Amino acid sequence: MQPFGDALADRIAKTSPVCVGLDPQLSKLPSSLPKTPEGVRAFCEGIIDATADIAACVKPQLAFYEVLGWEGMKVFFEVCAYAKSRGLLVIADGKRNDIGSTCEAYADAYLSADKPIDALTVTPFLGSDSIQPFLKRCKENGKGIFVLVKTSNKSSGELQDLPVGDESLHEHLAQLVESWGLSDLGPETNLSCVGAVVGATYPEELKYLRTLMPHLPFLIPGYGAQGGTAADVRNGFLLEGKGAIVNASRSILYASSGDDWRDAAKAAAEVMAKEIKDVLKDR
Amino acid sequence: MQPFGDALADRIAKTSPVCVGLDPQLSKLPSSLPKTPEGVRAFCEGIIDATADIAACVKPQLAFYEVLGWEGMKVFFEVCAYAKSRGLLVIADGKRNDIGSTCEAYADAYLSADKPIDALTVTPFLGSDSIQPFLKRCKENGKGIFVLVKTSNKSSGELQDLPVGDESLHEHLAQLVESWGLSDLGPETNLSCVGAVVGATYPEELKYLRTLMPHLPFLIPGYGAQGGTAADVRNGFLLEGKGAIVNASRSILYASSGDDWRDAAKAAAEVMAKEIKDVLKDR
Repeated sequence: MQPFGDALADRIAKTSPVCVGLDPQLSKLPSSLPKTPEGVRAFCEGIIDATADIAACVKPQLAFYEVLGWEGMKVFFEVCAYAKSRGLLVIADGKRNDIGSTCEAYADAYLSADKPIDALTVTPFLGSDSIQPFLKRCKENGKGIFVLVKTSNKSSGELQDLPVGDESLHEHLAQLVESWGLSDLGPETNLSCVGAVVGATYPEELKYLRTLMPHLPFLIPGYGAQGGTAADVRNGFLLEGKGAIVNASRSILYASSGDDWRDAAKAAAEVMAKEIKDVLKDR
Repeated sequence: MQPFGDALADRIAKTSPVCVGLDPQLSKLPSSLPKTPEGVRAFCEGIIDATADIAACVKPQLAFYEVLGWEGMKVFFEVCAYAKSRGLLVIADGKRNDIGSTCEAYADAYLSADKPIDALTVTPFLGSDSIQPFLKRCKENGKGIFVLVKTSNKSSGELQDLPVGDESLHEHLAQLVESWGLSDLGPETNLSCVGAVVGATYPEELKYLRTLMPHLPFLIPGYGAQGGTAADVRNGFLLEGKGAIVNASRSILYASSGDDWRDAAKAAAEVMAKEIKDVLKDR
């Protein structure tokens, strides 16, 4: 069983650092598909087919499945399994966390060996005892977590940028998350099963946070519709252009609202992959 | 449509400040019930029947339903609907949050008008723009949120107690959450649709946080199995013993593993309600 840090690096090397966010909104589905959980499944499978040879990962965003009730959760697991069958790594974006036995339940819900999911996004607010149950599954099952460190939204600074001594909260947190990750490094890459979420919309912070978390894969959201560019994400990568994935959702999913949505998604993913590879040439 | 702050106060006045945490673990179900989603449903309905005249609220913990896959999510909504039919207020404990359209999806998933849920727990790490979609549903649909401020677990201090200027992070956050809540106060009680989660296991912090958030209902976890006592939670209440609910899960759910589990849960909830009412007599 390959540790997650190594598996992610292998997959990026075979494809690109592109991560496709599977955020299916009923109101935005192509007009040829029904606005139902079944329509969502068909849409996600179409996007997966279109991008499976280009992207390293897909990142289904749990909220968009939960909002469809239990039928949506059924589709969520079906979509994850389909993506796995096409060779993609699957990052469940749930921003979950809790304490004690509840945290164990979340870890089993998404990172047990039988789930078609490779990694889960988690929140750090509860501290290290809420990370241990996830870490245990990562080590046992070759899974990963991505911990929120600096998010891409406008008000992220209200808590994340607060001054804590000589540094900001997110800088302090980054060192804590790096320490969580050091217990499980991939032997091929020295990359951890623990990763960090750092938004493309804060390129200066991204640059410094890269130095604070040298062993952690970065999941960089905010590319495309949120305004992040290839130049912005460059500093989130390690030397030789390794150690990060860049997520785009709307700019790929909804590249066309017409019948050519699959081709348009493929083309958008190809453009994004090229933009990132170009900017990493001298990294 | 009654604002959540007023509805909660009314319900507490008719019953008690007890909140029963519905955290069903398959391994702990009574031996007479199957260890399946159907067994979980029967167990939760039995606990609801046993405590509906004693407790103000139930708090189903989403992780324990998610770990059963989509079948578990189906049971989650059935359990919520059953609790509502018995007059209980329902707090979905999901500690959800995200940004932008994803946050809107979470808000619709749990706080739209048609959901059998009165309030949702949310995390504050992303700042105020991630609270607005929830606040909008609260105002429109008479729903509530409880924002994590100081959690009951041992490592909660790693981030929550960090020094920010002259105060701790959780004290700073408390004032931010109070400000979020001031926009929707119940006309009868002056209590907000926004509440705060503050653990019973930190009674000194609970006392001070009560002064920083005078308009917010408190959800106080950590009673019973986690070690919090009635004396510990006293200072989380407003004058006249209003404005807070106290959650216990394991000490009620698993009060007996025998055939008398319903009676034992009822008795445990009655003892807890009396303990809290006794300690609030002179509040």
